[in-house]
Parts: sequence; C-alpha cells; structure tokens
Amino acid sequence: MKQFSAKELQERIQKYIDGLDFSQGPQDLYDPIDYVLGLGGKRLRPVLMMMAYNLYCEDVEKIYSQAAGMETYHNFTLLHDDLMDKADMRRGKSTVHKKWNENTAILSGDAMLILAYRLMAQDCIADKLPQVLTAFGKAALEVCDGQQWDMEFEDRKEVLVDEYMNMIRLKTSVLLAASLQIGAMLAGASERDASLLYEFGVRIGLAFQLQDDFLDVYGDPAVFGKNIGGDILCNKKTYMLISALEKADDGLRGELLHWIDATDYVPVEKIAAVTHIYNVLGIDSLCRNAIDQLYEEGIALLDKVEVEEARKDILTAYVRGMMNRNL
Amino acid sequence: MKQFSAKELQERIQKYIDGLDFSQGPQDLYDPIDYVLGLGGKRLRPVLMMMAYNLYCEDVEKIYSQAAGMETYHNFTLLHDDLMDKADMRRGKSTVHKKWNENTAILSGDAMLILAYRLMAQDCIADKLPQVLTAFGKAALEVCDGQQWDMEFEDRKEVLVDEYMNMIRLKTSVLLAASLQIGAMLAGASERDASLLYEFGVRIGLAFQLQDDFLDVYGDPAVFGKNIGGDILCNKKTYMLISALEKADDGLRGELLHWIDATDYVPVEKIAAVTHIYNVLGIDSLCRNAIDQLYEEGIALLDKVEVEEARKDILTAYVRGMMNRNL
Repeated sequence: MKQFSAKELQERIQKYIDGLDFSQGPQDLYDPIDYVLGLGGKRLRPVLMMMAYNLYCEDVEKIYSQAAGMETYHNFTLLHDDLMDKADMRRGKSTVHKKWNENTAILSGDAMLILAYRLMAQDCIADKLPQVLTAFGKAALEVCDGQQWDMEFEDRKEVLVDEYMNMIRLKTSVLLAASLQIGAMLAGASERDASLLYEFGVRIGLAFQLQDDFLDVYGDPAVFGKNIGGDILCNKKTYMLISALEKADDGLRGELLHWIDATDYVPVEKIAAVTHIYNVLGIDSLCRNAIDQLYEEGIALLDKVEVEEARKDILTAYVRGMMNRNL
Repeated sequence: MKQFSAKELQERIQKYIDGLDFSQGPQDLYDPIDYVLGLGGKRLRPVLMMMAYNLYCEDVEKIYSQAAGMETYHNFTLLHDDLMDKADMRRGKSTVHKKWNENTAILSGDAMLILAYRLMAQDCIADKLPQVLTAFGKAALEVCDGQQWDMEFEDRKEVLVDEYMNMIRLKTSVLLAASLQIGAMLAGASERDASLLYEFGVRIGLAFQLQDDFLDVYGDPAVFGKNIGGDILCNKKTYMLISALEKADDGLRGELLHWIDATDYVPVEKIAAVTHIYNVLGIDSLCRNAIDQLYEEGIALLDKVEVEEARKDILTAYVRGMMNRNL
C-alpha cells in the first residue's frame, strides 16, 4: 500500500486548495478568502489528516475536501483572531481588516466558516458524515473557547499553569488532534485508533505550543524566524512567565512584576533581566522537561495504534520535524 | 394525520430553544448566545420548517433540532449584522457589542454559527443529512452575499431595482425558502415539492421585505410598531427610494436628491416632501402591485405542491398573517 511523503501530501493539498473557486458572489466578500488561503503556510492540519488516513488507506484524494475544510476553518480562525487581536501582519502580509476593513474581516470570516463546513460535508465518504461533523464541530467550538480564555487571560492578573495548559489545548491542540482523528475515521479505523491518534495530537499540539513559548526566549533568532524576547516585551502570559510567577519567591516575584509594570525601559535590558530570572528559577529546564514529557506521551500513544510500526514512520518524522527534533 | 397550529409550533420550538444548554465553556462566550436567543421573536423560520414538514408528517418533534439550528443561524446573522451596522438596539434591548464588547460579539457569533451547524446535523433523520447540509450551507452563504451587497449599496450612488431585489432575495428570502425546503426534505417530500416550497418561500420573503419598505412610508404607526418615515430620514435605499430615483424625471429627481443631500432639515418636512414625491410618481401603487404579484406567484407555487389542499390552509393563513392580509 502506497505511502505518501509529507512533501507529496502538502503539494497535493496545496494544489487542491489553489483549485478551489469561491468567487461566486460579491468580489469584496470572496477576495479576502482567496487572499487568506493564498498566504500559504505548511498546511499542517490537512497533512496530518491525510497522514492519519494514509496509515490505513492509500486513496488520499478521497479526503481532499475534508482536509481543505480543516485548513479553511483554521484560516478562518486566523482571520477573526487577527481582527480581535488587532494584529496588522500575518505571514509578512497585511491582515484582512487592514487591507480591506473590519466589516469585511467579520463577514468574509463568516463566509469562510460556512465554506469550511461545505468542504467538510462535500463528497464525504459514505456513512462517515455524522461522526466527522460531530468531531469537527466539537473541535471548532473548543477553538472558540480557547480564544475566549486567551483574551480573558490578557486582562487577568493571575493565570495558573493548569489554566494556561487548558487554554492552549483548546486554542491549538484540539484542531491538530481532530485532524488526525477525522483522517482515521474517514479511513474506517477503529474507534480506539481514532481516539489514540486524537490524544497523540493533543500532546503534540501542547508540546508544539510550549516549544514556541520556549523558543521566544531561548531560540536561535536565525532558526526561530522571529525576534527573540517578543513575548517578554509585551508581557505575554506564556508558559514561561506563568511558571515563573508561580515558582518565584517574594523577591524574584517583585523583580518580575517590576519589569511587567515598567513603561520606560530599554528593550534588550528587559529581555535580559527577565531571561535571567527565568534562568535562576530553572524555567528553561522546567519547560524543556514539560515539552519532552508531552512529546514522549504522544509517541507512546501513537505506539498503541494498531498499524504496522513501519507505517507510522512518516507521521513520526513529520512530528519530529514540527518539533525541530531532527535538527 | 394531526396538524399543528402556528401557535402550537411556535410554543413547541420556543420550549425546545429554552431548553438548550450551551453553557459548557467560558461564560462570557456563551452568555451572549443565550441572551440573543432569549430576545424572542416570532421564530418564523423554525415555524415555517415545521409547517412544511407537517404537510407530510405529524411527528414534528423529530425536526426540533434542525428547526432550532435554523433559528440559531438566523440569530447569529442578527448578532454580526448589528455589529457591522453599529446598531445599538435589537428588539428593545442592547445589542451584544454594546452590552459586552466588539470582540465578544465577533467570537460569540462564530460559536453560534458552529452551534447552528451542530443542531442542524444532530439527530438528523436518516439519510437526509447530506442534502439538508447542502441546502442549509447554500442559503447560509447567500445570506452573507446579501449582507455584503447591502453594505456595498449603502456607499453607492445608484442601485438598480433589479439589484435591490437580488440583494433582499439573498439577505432575507433564501433563509425562509430554505426553511420550508428543508422541512419538506426531512419529511421525505418529492424533490419537486421541496423546490416548489423553496420558490414559494422566495416570493413570500420578497413580498414581506417590500411590505416592510412600504409600511415605513404608508403604514399606520399604531400597527406598524416603528415610527413612520425612518427609512426616509436616513436615506435608506429601499424599494421605494430606488424606484423613485429610477422613475423620476430630471425635476423630481433633483428635488429628491436635494432632500437626500440635505443636512439641515425638519424631519416631518423631509418625510412629507419625499412621501409627496413618491405619491406623484405612483410609487405607492407600484410597490403595492409588486407585493401583490409576488404574493400571488407564491400562492400559485404552493398550489402546485402535491398535498391535499386543506392541509395547506395553516401555512397559507400563517403567511397571510405575516403579510397582514388578515387585517
């Protein structure tokens, strides 16, 4: 049974997405959709869906529509999140509410969500539609829950590590998890396998997000692709900051709060000072260990999936790549 | 076979909607959803769906979930439209972006759209799910198209009557039409009957909207429930204004444009002057005739539905009530 490489799957879904034509109505409603879907990206979610499907079946073209539906949903969340976060740029280009306007961003996003459902339902493999929609709808709603918690946490003084982990599970992990789960469902995998792949996806998603938090502080700027310390400068409540506030004694806590409340500072000094506090508290290894543990838990769950071990290599390598573990 | 009155159907779906519990996640995300769905209203769309179903089957409780899904979708559009239109009030209460804030209105609306799909798919009568979702998704997307045209028309100097009719078809009619169509589909009606009911709904929806435009100028304030002339004061591009601009000679057109551009005027004078121009141009009977024609076309389509005539009486009476034709 043929197995596709990550590269092949990404190219195939990219071509499928490029071929989608949404331009049936008012141009100013559909142009932003083409624009957002055309910004590119790694197409992580559809690739994961197809990889899960490809563990059991080789006719991956049968689920292009569902894979594209998942990507369309994900891009819809980026569009509306950028509007809510008042972000100007996404992947080096203007966001929709900047390039067009806020109302266009609202309404094009709404249309995109409807299109995501259309793709999800379209040509769905016989009998799988109800369970696919249930899994998709659950994840889609949880992503909204996650975004809501994320916005609420911004205005809160204190956030617990557990609350943070729950928020990133909802905002990031469940959609990766549901992609894998739906791919397995569509392939006719057992319920147990679909659940294991879902839980594998949850762990990998959490590890992935914690790694993002970690690399903002300890990453190599040349590799990370963003400036180091961005989260520190804007006091973003990451795993690093929340853990530090939880672990710090009164002295270090005061120092940390001083930098959080500071309005007049030299950026490199704030980054250096906060990083130093993290170092003193051992936040670097705390985070590193949490990532490792989640990753290992994920792999252990994948091990239990009842598919010949060698068939899992592509998925494992892909996830290792996501985690930069092949560097 | 039992037939339910409009009142019974409205009470049943109201009770079902009241019993829905969305409060599974962050309160500030789900409270606005309860709030919007709790504002009441006539539940027109679910009642129409159940009436179409009840033409063929009596177990209307089998489609409560789909009927509530349609109402949830409709209320989602009100929530996001009010945000885009910057409307402060809806049914005598603060709109969500006023009572909470804009981000809450965006995100709660998104969650509502996902919940609408969940209700639409949930416990859907066997084998009907794919066609129900196709019909629902098409209508849902067309409502977005309609809202986009509506917003674009506001900034345009000239809008043709045909363009306006297309806009209100998309923004208002197709959801009423799809409610009837989906009700028929779920009851296992023939494709022809489902299409006839859809087209009946389109005509009734158009007639309903034109009547709203008409009553803003010629209605009895005690019956209409809004102040007369509201559309005239804000230069809303209604059927009345667009028709008048299309029919007027240079002199009357100039007079009309003078009132449209006027910034300093006595409201009652503007209303009286514009109404006078409408009278001179015969816009009142033009609109009245258009409403009558659409209504008659609708009834003629309903006549063709292959159901014993007497079974259609409840639906006919309900639509006559919507059109105030029983007064």
